[in-house]
Amino acid sequence: MTEDQLTVQAGFLREYLTGLFTHAGLSSSDAVCAAECTVQTNLWGIDSHGLLRTPIYIKRLVSGAVNPRPDMKVLKGEKRPLELCDGDDGLGYIVSDWAMDRAVNKAEEFGIALVVVNSSNHFGAASLFAKKASDRGMFGIAATNVMPNIGMRGNRRPAAGNNPEALSAPLGGDFPFMLDISMSAVAGGKLLLAQKKGEKIPKDWAVTSDGLETDDPFEGFKGFLLPMGMHKGFGLSLYIDLLTGVLGGGAFLHQLRSMYGSPD
Amino acid sequence: MTEDQLTVQAGFLREYLTGLFTHAGLSSSDAVCAAECTVQTNLWGIDSHGLLRTPIYIKRLVSGAVNPRPDMKVLKGEKRPLELCDGDDGLGYIVSDWAMDRAVNKAEEFGIALVVVNSSNHFGAASLFAKKASDRGMFGIAATNVMPNIGMRGNRRPAAGNNPEALSAPLGGDFPFMLDISMSAVAGGKLLLAQKKGEKIPKDWAVTSDGLETDDPFEGFKGFLLPMGMHKGFGLSLYIDLLTGVLGGGAFLHQLRSMYGSPD
Repeated sequence: MTEDQLTVQAGFLREYLTGLFTHAGLSSSDAVCAAECTVQTNLWGIDSHGLLRTPIYIKRLVSGAVNPRPDMKVLKGEKRPLELCDGDDGLGYIVSDWAMDRAVNKAEEFGIALVVVNSSNHFGAASLFAKKASDRGMFGIAATNVMPNIGMRGNRRPAAGNNPEALSAPLGGDFPFMLDISMSAVAGGKLLLAQKKGEKIPKDWAVTSDGLETDDPFEGFKGFLLPMGMHKGFGLSLYIDLLTGVLGGGAFLHQLRSMYGSPD
Repeated sequence: MTEDQLTVQAGFLREYLTGLFTHAGLSSSDAVCAAECTVQTNLWGIDSHGLLRTPIYIKRLVSGAVNPRPDMKVLKGEKRPLELCDGDDGLGYIVSDWAMDRAVNKAEEFGIALVVVNSSNHFGAASLFAKKASDRGMFGIAATNVMPNIGMRGNRRPAAGNNPEALSAPLGGDFPFMLDISMSAVAGGKLLLAQKKGEKIPKDWAVTSDGLETDDPFEGFKGFLLPMGMHKGFGLSLYIDLLTGVLGGGAFLHQLRSMYGSPD
């Protein structure tokens, strides 16, 4: 443990976060859900999410950028295995937890189901929701589009989102099969690590901000991460955009971005 | 065009192949389907499949390794959106064409559907079947497990199949979105190309037959291809194995292989 780390009991953290989310305007049951999602993520060791993101979520809730009391609605297919919902701009944890419960209940009835949600927000680690299916003996997939953040050679702007996807399946024992990945070749943190170690990076990890090939972790970090397996990850990312953004009644986020610029 | 290439009219080839597949024992309608799948694949430029695989298919049909007159059956879920079928060891083209038609019809009725088939064989390019959905205005996914052929560092045996997956979506115009990839970092042909050019290969393309890191295209070719994005492609490959092999009532092919050895 380094100087800037401290150890906190999960139970204490859960309670603390419940208070924090309640304070930020969530209903008490939603605050419990958000706290549980956060703590579970860190207990799994996914420290790039969970607690690290909490300050941003709270800031957005308090500023009104995220709706603390969303009125989630089914827009289409309420009694069918394919359903479209409106997340009413709620916190990603809350909207996705609700939507995945609906998907799992439907899959129990029909054998398979897909629930697509629009107007949601950052949902943390996708595995939180995929696991809700394997917990009930089913295969589960949770995916989302994100603002474009990965590049392609020759592009000065990001070409696609790293659109994360989590997959789970029950394996009969205590632990399900679980995969939680984004569509970039590596996480940005790997470039920081190479910087520290004074190492070159493989040329398929990142491009410079001018979209040029690079093995320099500094140039790559200032530029864009590349998709995993180049065209393969790029194609998978676009497909997730189609399945979530377009099927959800939105549009390709990178189109929105070219029209309106980045929201940050 | 090089010396060993020749140009053939698609119509002529279709007719010729129909005769060939009929001769190998297929019913006339199945022979037309197999010929059409073959020609379409080469018209798309996927020359790693299509015609290149025809001699193997014919050999297997004639030897009885593949059943030329399969009696495909629905085993479970005939009237539901999740269905399990028995391919009766038929030619992959025939079994998959039949199964995808069932899936698309079901999706038209329910909004979403999944058909899993066991006892099938090599089905050529997965996009042939994914496209049947986008042709009818739907998202389509076709995937299969294959015998283990990709490695992981430290393994002297292949750790997973390169389990191909094709994804399609209608885009409103003449051309659908289409992605057809396998889960290896690159195709074996890329290593042959590097050999010819006298180039090194990136270290995440392949391992030696002892499972060791290599940038030598000769050592890599004698060894195993690595999964795209390392653990990412490896995980996606295992998930396809679960969705096809295990859900289909089979088992992980790599388990079968450790028990019985490779069939080739």
